[in-house]
Amino acid sequence: MSLQQIFATRTHRMKASEIRELLKLLDRPGLLSFAGGIPDPDLFPAAEFSQAFQTCLTPAHQAKALQYSASEGYPPLRQWIKAEMVRIGVPCEVDNILITSGSQQALDYLGKLLLSPGDTALVGWPTYLGALAAFNAYEPRYDQLNPTGNRSPASYRQAAQEEGSAVKFAYLSPDFANPTGETLSKAGREALLDMSEELGCAVIEDGAYQALRYEGESIPPVLALEIKRRGGIEDCRTIYCGSFSKTLSPGLRVGWVVAAKPVISQLVLMKQAADLHSPTINQMAVHQVAEAGFEAHVAGLKRAYGARRDAMLAALQEFMPEGISWTRPEGGMFVWLTLPKHIDGGQLLKRALEEESIAFVPGQAFFADGAGCNTLRLSFSVLPQDQIRSGMQRLGRLLHSA
Amino acid sequence: MSLQQIFATRTHRMKASEIRELLKLLDRPGLLSFAGGIPDPDLFPAAEFSQAFQTCLTPAHQAKALQYSASEGYPPLRQWIKAEMVRIGVPCEVDNILITSGSQQALDYLGKLLLSPGDTALVGWPTYLGALAAFNAYEPRYDQLNPTGNRSPASYRQAAQEEGSAVKFAYLSPDFANPTGETLSKAGREALLDMSEELGCAVIEDGAYQALRYEGESIPPVLALEIKRRGGIEDCRTIYCGSFSKTLSPGLRVGWVVAAKPVISQLVLMKQAADLHSPTINQMAVHQVAEAGFEAHVAGLKRAYGARRDAMLAALQEFMPEGISWTRPEGGMFVWLTLPKHIDGGQLLKRALEEESIAFVPGQAFFADGAGCNTLRLSFSVLPQDQIRSGMQRLGRLLHSA
Repeated sequence: MSLQQIFATRTHRMKASEIRELLKLLDRPGLLSFAGGIPDPDLFPAAEFSQAFQTCLTPAHQAKALQYSASEGYPPLRQWIKAEMVRIGVPCEVDNILITSGSQQALDYLGKLLLSPGDTALVGWPTYLGALAAFNAYEPRYDQLNPTGNRSPASYRQAAQEEGSAVKFAYLSPDFANPTGETLSKAGREALLDMSEELGCAVIEDGAYQALRYEGESIPPVLALEIKRRGGIEDCRTIYCGSFSKTLSPGLRVGWVVAAKPVISQLVLMKQAADLHSPTINQMAVHQVAEAGFEAHVAGLKRAYGARRDAMLAALQEFMPEGISWTRPEGGMFVWLTLPKHIDGGQLLKRALEEESIAFVPGQAFFADGAGCNTLRLSFSVLPQDQIRSGMQRLGRLLHSA
Repeated sequence: MSLQQIFATRTHRMKASEIRELLKLLDRPGLLSFAGGIPDPDLFPAAEFSQAFQTCLTPAHQAKALQYSASEGYPPLRQWIKAEMVRIGVPCEVDNILITSGSQQALDYLGKLLLSPGDTALVGWPTYLGALAAFNAYEPRYDQLNPTGNRSPASYRQAAQEEGSAVKFAYLSPDFANPTGETLSKAGREALLDMSEELGCAVIEDGAYQALRYEGESIPPVLALEIKRRGGIEDCRTIYCGSFSKTLSPGLRVGWVVAAKPVISQLVLMKQAADLHSPTINQMAVHQVAEAGFEAHVAGLKRAYGARRDAMLAALQEFMPEGISWTRPEGGMFVWLTLPKHIDGGQLLKRALEEESIAFVPGQAFFADGAGCNTLRLSFSVLPQDQIRSGMQRLGRLLHSA
């Protein structure tokens, strides 16, 4: 059998994810995992979803809920999202919105939309590894995005041209980014827009964690700032990706894209060709649950996750030895640790699993250039405060001897 | 705004589907539509799904149902599919199965897996237009697949080489194909396998309609015949795509791929990068409904759709003027009409909508080479027998004057 010999060239860049291999080890009893960036299932609005799915499957709705539907998405859900986008500062119309199967699918489609092989994508070092995985399928060249640094747009263009390439987009998660937990300042967002304007490239704004702010003032989405500059979404280069995965349920796979209509039209064709549409009943159920009480539900999540973030930051302060630094996220699910240069995150994980029965994600996987050996990502979203404290105590013990 | 200027080259080949534009016109009262290839919503097992979703959202299951899950798919569903594949003659293991969001997604992933720009895909002229749409994103060259014709494998290779290309796969739906309704004989399937062996290419077997046979004897899937030749699935080049869309519900978007493990492993990575996994709760619900009575449910569908096929074939016999021929499908949802050369299907559709208030799909969209102007596709799956008869009467009237 030789089908592997005829695989497309893109498969050379699609490798198994470190996180995924890791997650296979996490079933052992007593292990405290800070690895997965997953929501706490005890916080799912399960009763509300039970009610919603039941409603979808009553005689009045069942034919629609189980049937094929439009590639753009379920109109009432697009309407709800439009209102939510307006609420966070992004005036738009329903036709500026496409429903996707999670924001992961939006990243895949945006890579497909914008990248021919060799095109340049600007990404943070580190960045969300799922974004790298999605883009890798379209064989890009990467360069380091650093909106608050001092690289000029011309230098990005020149570096790309030297490789026979053009800069197609900058990808970032401006709020409480996966993996660092950091938030880009308003000035940084404006600098990013200046750069995208000069390069003529798109900005892919990943808002997966946007709703989960536990302290500090909201900063307008990059798309909101660009709409202010240009007077309307139709003249904008920013493409916003949202998701219900961190707020309502990841297992239902419902996310969305907001962009100028010509971008949405092309993405609709792409979705139609790729999976026809996201599941109808899931969109109807998410709409019902969101309509009935999204804000109140998210307020509850913020209280719970905010307390866990506080517990992790306090425990890091208490237990980390000298020479280790970490981020102080204002929201989201992650804290990012930088270790002394001689400590390798992958090696440390092996010892962590064996000696202390804790897990985290070594940071290297989040770097497009393979750097970041001495970094690691901790998630505080799943465990209760006392276990977070216990886990950080174990991690501190391990690092004292590393 | 100039994002369209930086779209990837693949977007040049992704255009709006004729069927899709058409379906926007189908809401008018009194119109009899033979256009969409959709199942009859009155035949959905809605009560069973209502029960299944409720079970998924009881406290014992809700955390799992709403959470992230494995890219490969929900294990009990993969187990059920394995048993079903064995039943239809395809011995395999659970690790030979990937759950996809409908078989449309399988086609997208297989294009992504196998096609670099310029690679050759062999497809029927006509073929499923959703397959062309999925593959177009990977910028292939097409050549005409005709397993029972007399083109030698060498001629395919040579034609590809002349374009600097290699043949990567042959795509077909061997049972009751969309759009023709035709079934490939066992000899034709064997000839296809001979050809794929000589060309070293894959075979993509689209089994979307496989379960819906109304008369005649089942023919083993191409994959079953190849397993017999080679002794096991791991040595096979055939990749089978299945779907619950035509049997249980299309709106839930649950399909699957069966192939050798190295193919599945690569597809799992691809799915993980593209949308993480198909919705968890949908897979659990489909598993429950399939487990409880797939065969009995499909038996009911066959009775209903079989009677509608009979009604359409009888009415065509009764009302079609001279010079028109059509297929006599043993299953599926479609009859394919060939009109006299001077009649254009697209022009006829306009008149059909205006003068007779009926709809169908002009055949040209199903041809990779743009041929087939004088063909059209009729679906018999949605309307009751009396309306099918009335629709064919109207079509006959129209054709008498065309």
